Amino acid sequence: MKFEIPKSIEILERTPFVLETMLSGLSEEWVMNNEGPDTWSPYDVIGHLIHGERTDWLVRMEVILSCLQDKRFAPYDRFAQFIESKGKTLEQLLMEFKDCRLRNLQILKDKNLNEVDLDKTGIHPRFGSVTLRQLFSTWVTHDMTHIAQIVRVMAKQYKIEVGPWVEYVGVLNR
Amino acid sequence: MKFEIPKSIEILERTPFVLETMLSGLSEEWVMNNEGPDTWSPYDVIGHLIHGERTDWLVRMEVILSCLQDKRFAPYDRFAQFIESKGKTLEQLLMEFKDCRLRNLQILKDKNLNEVDLDKTGIHPRFGSVTLRQLFSTWVTHDMTHIAQIVRVMAKQYKIEVGPWVEYVGVLNR
Repeated sequence: MKFEIPKSIEILERTPFVLETMLSGLSEEWVMNNEGPDTWSPYDVIGHLIHGERTDWLVRMEVILSCLQDKRFAPYDRFAQFIESKGKTLEQLLMEFKDCRLRNLQILKDKNLNEVDLDKTGIHPRFGSVTLRQLFSTWVTHDMTHIAQIVRVMAKQYKIEVGPWVEYVGVLNR
Repeated sequence: MKFEIPKSIEILERTPFVLETMLSGLSEEWVMNNEGPDTWSPYDVIGHLIHGERTDWLVRMEVILSCLQDKRFAPYDRFAQFIESKGKTLEQLLMEFKDCRLRNLQILKDKNLNEVDLDKTGIHPRFGSVTLRQLFSTWVTHDMTHIAQIVRVMAKQYKIEVGPWVEYVGVLNR
């Protein structure tokens, strides 16, 4: 499947609603438990997604589209949510993510980017030259990897309870 | 986390709505593409979930709760959806899944099962004796494993497009 902006927006605009449908109103245990030491709960993941909306995707897009000579991206802080989410409820985080995401998608649409823009590049701190197309494709798959993570973390809460079926339920073995 | 019926229903009742939010109205490519030969598309997975509602979870519950001497479960057909979904649109399948699931959850609630019931057993064709508690825990995690599968299959459509980021996006490497 080839990258296209409209097909990417289809996914990006659904994610906040998917997460709200999945998590809003759930018991604390489903939302706050994780997979063990140094792993993330569904609550932590939502904070991470918000931080991405604020500091990663569109910030990097602007670097790529700018006429700056130095197109290096600032490194991404994968642990920012442990400070930024403090004192907030899950419902607040879900709302915040929805707001940030919708605003960012409006900015993206207003840019009216073309194929030439999508081929423009920035400098990733580790990979070196990357295109805007690759950045946006990663934005889409990053949503998906974290949705998969959230359902995996929740499923593992019942890992013992499923008994012998554990070997048939793929997500419990990752 | 210990198995509890109300906490399980929290997940089971959300799944049809999660899948509808995730998939309804998406472009054909997101819904019909799979991961390669002999793998399932999101469309195929919804058919599989419907077949489970019709022939697996509550049917096996009834075997466990019955006074039959032979409590062996019928084997589950993992490929039934390739016949049963024929000619149906994704929207029809999503609606059908929602209907079956809601009806099944109503049956489950009406049973008013207690801890003694949850300890009752049936005979799985491969594992032998399994409890109703294990069956229901598996129902919950089975939803989750298939949600994770659907997002993985969709993410992989962009596996090439993400370029070097492929190594950071966990779901692309499964």
